[in-house]
Amino acid sequence: MAKLRAVLFDVFGTLLDVHSVAKRADELFPGHGAALSQHWRAKQLEYTRVRALSNRYLPFTQLTEDALWWAGAALQLPLDKAAVGLLMHEYTQLAPFADTAPALERLRRADVTLGVLSNGDPGLLEDAMHGAQIGEYFDLVLSADSVHSYKTAPAVYELGPRSLGHPAGEILFVSGNGWDAVGAQWFGYVGFWVNRTAAPAERLRVDLRCGTSLGDAVDFYLQFNS
Amino acid sequence: MAKLRAVLFDVFGTLLDVHSVAKRADELFPGHGAALSQHWRAKQLEYTRVRALSNRYLPFTQLTEDALWWAGAALQLPLDKAAVGLLMHEYTQLAPFADTAPALERLRRADVTLGVLSNGDPGLLEDAMHGAQIGEYFDLVLSADSVHSYKTAPAVYELGPRSLGHPAGEILFVSGNGWDAVGAQWFGYVGFWVNRTAAPAERLRVDLRCGTSLGDAVDFYLQFNS
Repeated sequence: MAKLRAVLFDVFGTLLDVHSVAKRADELFPGHGAALSQHWRAKQLEYTRVRALSNRYLPFTQLTEDALWWAGAALQLPLDKAAVGLLMHEYTQLAPFADTAPALERLRRADVTLGVLSNGDPGLLEDAMHGAQIGEYFDLVLSADSVHSYKTAPAVYELGPRSLGHPAGEILFVSGNGWDAVGAQWFGYVGFWVNRTAAPAERLRVDLRCGTSLGDAVDFYLQFNS
Repeated sequence: MAKLRAVLFDVFGTLLDVHSVAKRADELFPGHGAALSQHWRAKQLEYTRVRALSNRYLPFTQLTEDALWWAGAALQLPLDKAAVGLLMHEYTQLAPFADTAPALERLRRADVTLGVLSNGDPGLLEDAMHGAQIGEYFDLVLSADSVHSYKTAPAVYELGPRSLGHPAGEILFVSGNGWDAVGAQWFGYVGFWVNRTAAPAERLRVDLRCGTSLGDAVDFYLQFNS
């Protein structure tokens, strides 16, 4: 089997914790922060998919704000422009997971090419990766914005092999989102799902490698190439 | 403005109540029927979108069964093959909404061409429409299966104008699913959302006609053409 030449990471839900906004949301709407964060995230993903399927691209930041307004309405919270502004700013300052920096450090020591491949638009990615102090680890930052679509569209995953100059089958794709790891593997990557919440496996008829932390993904990479 | 030449209906969630399975589910798993039905439906829709985006079509019946297994696991219910068989059979026998037959009767009296355009595969559509005794109302039954994709892909909505021989702008598309009415209108139909649950409007930047019952959609049709 060919060695792995690079590792690509998803960002939101993989390196950064999208639910770190729940704390700020709970300050604004006591007792409703977690629910708002969950509804927001679910609707955001729905909008990426529906818009990509319908060829009605809208940048991730705008679509994320739309989803936030919807989530507020669904939970009947008195969301206003100030609160939306605050929460959207919070989204540019998401907390990295505790295992993010240690895993990236190990890969840097292993001298492997590292990149991210995200639904986020370039402005959001820059802010979020800078805010979490993880920008320095990556050789390349790929955004679905450059093809005006969203995962799991093949055009988005195609950005990896095209930019890296290696076939997808020689690239490890790591995601904290099961459907994203599946989509990547369908495309041809070696997919790895970081299942942090012990969620049930997606029933998408794919035999997916998984672990419970980014450290497990690094272990897999090092073992695969050893 | 040109008159409307035909009315197309979505089926699941529009003419038939997907949550009518909740009662049977609650007999199997007391206290968990509603949650199982909600998780099942959400995952089913997610799988249609992810598979359509990735060009990994699987017929709706199979994907629906996959989603049911996932929902059972997510809720940690002791789902087994017998329970899945029972619930999948229930899905072929969904209850029509109370306003379904009266609305279709009114349109039949108005002598308008009626059709359905559904994600359901032909076998499921036939069983479900026969079970609900609504098959007789329709001049045509269109299934996403014929293009091996799912809403909101344009290839699916294209089935309407292609089969009817009228431009989409002269066809009323009625759905109980907001995202479906939006997708149809993006494609070019006159979209109408039957918002039965007073759900917040989708933030998809579309000015959508809506009502609270199928009767409202019929009123709109009759008034538009008068």
